[in-house]
Amino acid sequence: MQLYSYFRSSAAYRVRIALSLKGLSYETVPVHLVKGGGQQLEPAYRQVNPNALVPTLVDGDLTLGQSLAIIEYLDETHPQPALLPADAAGRARVRALALTVACDIHPLNNLRVLKYLKHDLKVDEDAKNGWYRHWIDVGLGGLEQMLAGSPQTGRFCHGDTPTLADLCLVPQVFNARRFDCDLSAFPTLVRIDAACQELQAFQDAAPERQPDAQ
Amino acid sequence: MQLYSYFRSSAAYRVRIALSLKGLSYETVPVHLVKGGGQQLEPAYRQVNPNALVPTLVDGDLTLGQSLAIIEYLDETHPQPALLPADAAGRARVRALALTVACDIHPLNNLRVLKYLKHDLKVDEDAKNGWYRHWIDVGLGGLEQMLAGSPQTGRFCHGDTPTLADLCLVPQVFNARRFDCDLSAFPTLVRIDAACQELQAFQDAAPERQPDAQ
Repeated sequence: MQLYSYFRSSAAYRVRIALSLKGLSYETVPVHLVKGGGQQLEPAYRQVNPNALVPTLVDGDLTLGQSLAIIEYLDETHPQPALLPADAAGRARVRALALTVACDIHPLNNLRVLKYLKHDLKVDEDAKNGWYRHWIDVGLGGLEQMLAGSPQTGRFCHGDTPTLADLCLVPQVFNARRFDCDLSAFPTLVRIDAACQELQAFQDAAPERQPDAQ
Repeated sequence: MQLYSYFRSSAAYRVRIALSLKGLSYETVPVHLVKGGGQQLEPAYRQVNPNALVPTLVDGDLTLGQSLAIIEYLDETHPQPALLPADAAGRARVRALALTVACDIHPLNNLRVLKYLKHDLKVDEDAKNGWYRHWIDVGLGGLEQMLAGSPQTGRFCHGDTPTLADLCLVPQVFNARRFDCDLSAFPTLVRIDAACQELQAFQDAAPERQPDAQ
């Protein structure tokens, strides 16, 4: 398998954790999102991924974008260890937690959006950082309430083994820290992130450990 | 089952199509996203959905947000007609198409974001509409390329029966038209939308047919 990835991409980070937890080996194909205006926008990469976003997984004949679709695919084709619970209600809860990050937080704060705010809407640096922190605060606030209020939350987001929800949480917490967001209102998220960081698979998937890290 | 919904919410619309295709009856609980500053922000609704977003599905003991998690749950608990293909690669493709709408387009254009642009960033009406159309153009452009370039595209996004991908596409096309976006560059999307609109289930789920439509 090949993974088109950028070390700091939060969506690529999710997939790297999945590959790592499942012990799957893969080749990293670096796509530098900043250099030269962004390699993801070049025609050659658009042939691989029409959305011009990372990650893309190539597995034989299949070329697949969208981190959550990739992780579900990996979980179906390499079921152990499972990244989704065995019961429908549990799977629904885990997917809802994951989508809270993947739909409600991350799309608002990714690089292309921050660039549009700066270059097209002429938003200054302070206001841009305010935007970033606002959506983090709103999104992580909802997530904290979902997790802190549920008996299904365990050592990880759902029970005592990592799931798709943790694979989304950890890169989002990483991003929040990189932008100096105050996480003191989210003790459950911070606790779960710390539990994840103890696992080798999460450590190996971290941005600073990637071959394209700078 | 109960669905907390707003007639114009694109995410609620997706779920309504799923319920309708599966012939499931449910009670609509209206959550007006505009009236009084937004009923979704009231403490009573935050107890139901900590993210303060619609839709929320209540099915017995389960209270579930996030439209894609809800649709996957409905598909697992009421398998006919299936909204995902039988093969892992097909499911991956359909999920990737759905997530292109749900992660790459819709989150940037939903109401809370447009409000933030206007009230917090003081973006004027023209620039706000430019933002809206920009993300529609970029996202639908990627989607068009994914669909037009694939032999797996049929009458619908994947083969000849509607899937999760169509459930996301149709509300997004509805939104694009509502904001007067030019869809001439997306002939495949327009063709598939028209095929969906021929089905009773899609017609019944449309915003103007909802009990809270105004």
